[in-house]
Amino acid sequence: MNSHETTPGSSPLGVAMIGYAFMGKAHSNAWRNVASYFDVPAFERRVLVGRDPAGVAEAAAKYGWAESSTDWREVIARDDIQIVDICAPGWMHAEIAIAALAAGKHVLVEKPLANTLAEAEAMAEAARAARTRGVQSMIGFNYRRVPALALAKELIAEGRLGTIRHVRAAYLQDWLVDPDSPMTWRLNKDTAGSGALGDIASHAIDQVLFLLGGQVTEVSGRLHTFTPQRPGATGLEDVTVDDAAWATLTLASGAIASVEVSRVATGQKNSLKLEIYGDKGALLFDLEDLNELGFLDATLPVREQGFRRILVNEPEHPYADAWWPQGHVLGWEHTFTHEIRDFLVAVGTGTTPSPSFEDGLNVQRILAAVEESAAAKSSLIQLAPSAPTTQPATERA
Amino acid sequence: MNSHETTPGSSPLGVAMIGYAFMGKAHSNAWRNVASYFDVPAFERRVLVGRDPAGVAEAAAKYGWAESSTDWREVIARDDIQIVDICAPGWMHAEIAIAALAAGKHVLVEKPLANTLAEAEAMAEAARAARTRGVQSMIGFNYRRVPALALAKELIAEGRLGTIRHVRAAYLQDWLVDPDSPMTWRLNKDTAGSGALGDIASHAIDQVLFLLGGQVTEVSGRLHTFTPQRPGATGLEDVTVDDAAWATLTLASGAIASVEVSRVATGQKNSLKLEIYGDKGALLFDLEDLNELGFLDATLPVREQGFRRILVNEPEHPYADAWWPQGHVLGWEHTFTHEIRDFLVAVGTGTTPSPSFEDGLNVQRILAAVEESAAAKSSLIQLAPSAPTTQPATERA
Amino acid sequence: MNSHETTPGSSPLGVAMIGYAFMGKAHSNAWRNVASYFDVPAFERRVLVGRDPAGVAEAAAKYGWAESSTDWREVIARDDIQIVDICAPGWMHAEIAIAALAAGKHVLVEKPLANTLAEAEAMAEAARAARTRGVQSMIGFNYRRVPALALAKELIAEGRLGTIRHVRAAYLQDWLVDPDSPMTWRLNKDTAGSGALGDIASHAIDQVLFLLGGQVTEVSGRLHTFTPQRPGATGLEDVTVDDAAWATLTLASGAIASVEVSRVATGQKNSLKLEIYGDKGALLFDLEDLNELGFLDATLPVREQGFRRILVNEPEHPYADAWWPQGHVLGWEHTFTHEIRDFLVAVGTGTTPSPSFEDGLNVQRILAAVEESAAAKSSLIQLAPSAPTTQPATERA
Amino acid sequence: MNSHETTPGSSPLGVAMIGYAFMGKAHSNAWRNVASYFDVPAFERRVLVGRDPAGVAEAAAKYGWAESSTDWREVIARDDIQIVDICAPGWMHAEIAIAALAAGKHVLVEKPLANTLAEAEAMAEAARAARTRGVQSMIGFNYRRVPALALAKELIAEGRLGTIRHVRAAYLQDWLVDPDSPMTWRLNKDTAGSGALGDIASHAIDQVLFLLGGQVTEVSGRLHTFTPQRPGATGLEDVTVDDAAWATLTLASGAIASVEVSRVATGQKNSLKLEIYGDKGALLFDLEDLNELGFLDATLPVREQGFRRILVNEPEHPYADAWWPQGHVLGWEHTFTHEIRDFLVAVGTGTTPSPSFEDGLNVQRILAAVEESAAAKSSLIQLAPSAPTTQPATERA
Repeated sequence: MNSHETTPGSSPLGVAMIGYAFMGKAHSNAWRNVASYFDVPAFERRVLVGRDPAGVAEAAAKYGWAESSTDWREVIARDDIQIVDICAPGWMHAEIAIAALAAGKHVLVEKPLANTLAEAEAMAEAARAARTRGVQSMIGFNYRRVPALALAKELIAEGRLGTIRHVRAAYLQDWLVDPDSPMTWRLNKDTAGSGALGDIASHAIDQVLFLLGGQVTEVSGRLHTFTPQRPGATGLEDVTVDDAAWATLTLASGAIASVEVSRVATGQKNSLKLEIYGDKGALLFDLEDLNELGFLDATLPVREQGFRRILVNEPEHPYADAWWPQGHVLGWEHTFTHEIRDFLVAVGTGTTPSPSFEDGLNVQRILAAVEESAAAKSSLIQLAPSAPTTQPATERA
Repeated sequence: MNSHETTPGSSPLGVAMIGYAFMGKAHSNAWRNVASYFDVPAFERRVLVGRDPAGVAEAAAKYGWAESSTDWREVIARDDIQIVDICAPGWMHAEIAIAALAAGKHVLVEKPLANTLAEAEAMAEAARAARTRGVQSMIGFNYRRVPALALAKELIAEGRLGTIRHVRAAYLQDWLVDPDSPMTWRLNKDTAGSGALGDIASHAIDQVLFLLGGQVTEVSGRLHTFTPQRPGATGLEDVTVDDAAWATLTLASGAIASVEVSRVATGQKNSLKLEIYGDKGALLFDLEDLNELGFLDATLPVREQGFRRILVNEPEHPYADAWWPQGHVLGWEHTFTHEIRDFLVAVGTGTTPSPSFEDGLNVQRILAAVEESAAAKSSLIQLAPSAPTTQPATERA
Repeated sequence: MNSHETTPGSSPLGVAMIGYAFMGKAHSNAWRNVASYFDVPAFERRVLVGRDPAGVAEAAAKYGWAESSTDWREVIARDDIQIVDICAPGWMHAEIAIAALAAGKHVLVEKPLANTLAEAEAMAEAARAARTRGVQSMIGFNYRRVPALALAKELIAEGRLGTIRHVRAAYLQDWLVDPDSPMTWRLNKDTAGSGALGDIASHAIDQVLFLLGGQVTEVSGRLHTFTPQRPGATGLEDVTVDDAAWATLTLASGAIASVEVSRVATGQKNSLKLEIYGDKGALLFDLEDLNELGFLDATLPVREQGFRRILVNEPEHPYADAWWPQGHVLGWEHTFTHEIRDFLVAVGTGTTPSPSFEDGLNVQRILAAVEESAAAKSSLIQLAPSAPTTQPATERA
Repeated sequence: MNSHETTPGSSPLGVAMIGYAFMGKAHSNAWRNVASYFDVPAFERRVLVGRDPAGVAEAAAKYGWAESSTDWREVIARDDIQIVDICAPGWMHAEIAIAALAAGKHVLVEKPLANTLAEAEAMAEAARAARTRGVQSMIGFNYRRVPALALAKELIAEGRLGTIRHVRAAYLQDWLVDPDSPMTWRLNKDTAGSGALGDIASHAIDQVLFLLGGQVTEVSGRLHTFTPQRPGATGLEDVTVDDAAWATLTLASGAIASVEVSRVATGQKNSLKLEIYGDKGALLFDLEDLNELGFLDATLPVREQGFRRILVNEPEHPYADAWWPQGHVLGWEHTFTHEIRDFLVAVGTGTTPSPSFEDGLNVQRILAAVEESAAAKSSLIQLAPSAPTTQPATERA
């Protein structure tokens, strides 16, 4: 291991990561790079865990993990592992996370928290219990660490938008546009839980909660599958998840957020769009231009008002000082490096990282309410108040 | 009157316009200019009608009408009036339009068709009856005549978008952002009928119908008033119309459209945004950049796909050839000039102009369904099939 | 004539316009509409002058002129003509303008002032002489009346940009991209004077002078013809004007402006682009989006700096209050309506309109210096100081 | 070292890097990550070299180099070093590179090739000699590896732009806007060689050569220093380099490129802008939005022409397949990872990497000609033909 990962006089934290597909690749990048840019506690990338022995060994070599393993239970039992990063599929989250927390390991888990509400509740309960023992946990809503969105959060928290009236949140992709593209496990409710709703509406809804704070009290939703059958191994198979979803959310503050997500929005590749309208200002964001934040300050003279394109790459901006000079833009995967930086700092200082499993559970409850409303002809569903969530700790905190 | 408005051998059409506020100013501009750009039947701007004698006389002089009058009944009875253009407030539409059609006058009426569904139905019935007698009628959804949207219609009609899956329509303004801005008749349901819903959602919904064609079969809606009281003459008064509205519309084709409108979308001045996603292509539009159409052709190689910014100012584009060389952009009021050109041509050729009163009624029914759904906790409302509507006749037709 | 054009107790100004091609159509539009939007002295559109009797008669009818004539000398001798608007080709400007001024008529002349420097100097001299007799004159650099550029001028004049260091000005078109498009009089130096240089660099250079003020002291230039021969009536003919031009201008203030113009910039339709960089702020503009001004205020905290898109359609903006509510955008031809409004107000109040013939001469001298430099291998050419020019009078003045 | 960097049966390439400031940080990132994304020959990050023992040791630990050293001569003499990556200041390039090549090491050197033309020529000569012995060399114009610009190169090479007429290249930054920002070695000609010219015009000019190919035959240039004195340690000191530069370049093909660079373009952070106009198409690029390429295909029907925003993140795009799914955008430093991937592949396959030292020399000659022209009142300078340069080998080659 590289010498920088050892601090004299204290053992480096041992990290195990479970899963090495898309998210495993992205998290590996973050673990590989975070210490070259940020001051973080010393750590070592000790084990990568996966099911296929050859595959996981190859991935460990490629992504820079010292060892590989096929047995996550054995790994979380090791004394030299202090952190478990769960990038496995959603249906495995609960079992691994609960076991790891019980074993006293700090846990980072990819979103969504779980595939079912019951599992998510059990995980949140486990996280609360572990926290009393100084064992930390966090859910990886990485877009909270886009510098532009962290700046948006700051501006809102400072009151620059005044009272927020409404939010337009959309997450648009187009990888299912072709009606002849084949059936996959992602389009089967049994394996995937849901479609665009859980996959990308979860991000959009988390941003609403992150940026505005507070509770969602009421939900109306619709789900739709434009291509109800797709070619599978043995002929046409039923698509049992949604291609697109629509919802409105009422917040306790009185704000209303619309959410619209789609996997058939032709030409939109990975476009998480946010528009936030307050009585003193407004914000615009698009993940396809993630270095930019649109900001309108409605307290300036009308003659000179307009949405500004802030290129969020100045030393003054969240996370940016660690990287390059102004205008040298960051990419998508940097959000994970920021996420792991914040997680490591929280672990190192013994503070509670954010977003918590409770935050993840909160999003799951809203997603469930969207499904419930959709099943009830879009009728508004009331949500019970959830437990207070932790406050976000960004690079500034 | 200017000599160009008289064609030898046929009497010019006599035009009367009723109302001289915002819409009257815009329509006057169109009547004043249309014959300088387009080949239209000869007409004369004979009478402007309004309630205040001095005001209407001044407006007639300023806007270029030969005479003024305060008595619309007298005016529609005149033999030298063949066309009545109704720009009066919505609650006056039905009475004037029905009387004018009964008097054999061709009628153009501003949107919305009427303030109540009953009035709108009576107007549609009157229009159908008049049509059998060769008397034409049209409702002024002027944005159908934005060249970029007329081009959008052409591309969709040619199949360039393939099967359309979903539409995102929004109309965002911000003139009510300030919670201290005063109460007006526009914020009172008795005088205004509704708020953002009738005023601007009507445009957004008309575009969905114009571009996609077909029927809306199902509606879910929400309405909200963010500032429920505003300062009036005698203290705080109740705002009884919506500041913002949200809806989803199911079309008979299976497409789903989301509609979101607001008068408190800070920084959005007059932004009618349309996004249309089909399996072969997609379109983007924003009224604040009305000379541009975004088009993505998904049948091109993926390597070179992307939304194009088409500057809709080429001789090849709808209406554009009449104006200026390429790249010399048009403004908002040109849409009315195109509208009156199309209306005059239809009158001159004895063909049915579009959109018809039935089209206007159709929009009203959808707006009513949004209100009904909003009152029923957003539950989906089924719409009965409406009568077939006329087909749009743009400059190309 | 319309009654609004007559003010009781004073004779309306009689207007004659010479020329009815592209610019005549645009000016006619302005004369037809200006009094419907702005408070201007009463006037009548009395005569349209052209060479072809039938053509000019038809244009007069179409564009709304009371009479037509083929004899400009006779027209400027008429007692009922007080204003002469010259839209004839450039080579006719000097003779007509000098005669009209001598006859005591107020003169508006389209840019460029003249085809030769000698003619331009004679015209400026005639204008100076006439001015002492209360006879006004103006050159029609209409882009000074784009509201966004008038706002730019205001912001610069208020010091919001601080010390301006450099300007990037470009005017890009693409109508000559096709090497097989035919030879025309516009591509022949004898008839056109120059190519892109005189036609569109003149606008770009005038903007530099308008916005920054002050003198150009030094010029370096290049000219190039990418397609040196084009098909003519009798085979390939030589193109004797430039397709594109490049220049740098030193201003007396120390600022440096680059100018680049082209008729072969594929995909750029009518794009006059301006970028102005000062030590306290910067401005961006593109004529294809003429309702927008980009403004960066560098005195704000770095964290929130960014170019704002100001939609220049608020009542607070130059010229805008006369038109439509906020966000209802204007088009290209509105610039001429503003120009004629300003000219009429100056005539009515007996003040000197701007830009003057001297301003036009100043631009011509810079264009001549570009040609001189281009002929001398781009060597810097020194310019003698010109006489002080008049200050611009926009709608605010 | 990580196991993935060793291929059984062949020794991994030993890499030494000299310099650990801005460029050293960026190159370290690339060496740390390249093997996790691309198939490259096995290598080990063996030594980081710098002048300050403590500083370089700390940087080596932070950036992931096995050892550190303060003696570059000793390092290039080591048998376990096969590759030398030179990120030291420009005045050290020649000595190190020539020595390393003589020692049989493959050399990657940051741009600019050298501070003087004489040094650059010696380096190119050394590279040519080394190449005959199978020793490779490359100059790091990293923007050739922006996927959008690699795609631009492909489209041009395929003839999609037809005959290119002109190019507008600009590189705008604003870090010297404040006239009170202090004097540094970068503003002193003795230490920095030149100002914006060598620093950023070099990138802009390299892009012209990369994209269009061919020779520059003629140059006209200007240089200017807007703030001639800045506060230094002992009072005001003279700034002896340019703040901004302007040039036109004639290419052997007949194309003309304008180049404009500035360090005082307020609000422009790191904006390398390219516009390329051919008779069949055009391209637009801005480094601040480096995932996007604007492309207009002028062979399509005029009705549907427009600049497309291609989000260059599809598997079909250069370099993109190695990273993330579509729409998950890359950042600025990825260009170095691509650069080192291409360099390693060339070294591994024994092919000549591109751009070569001759390419770097070619850029230096053009920069020198700009200075020469600027000193001669912008007069056009003829350039002698240079030796044929190597062809670029991107990821596709």
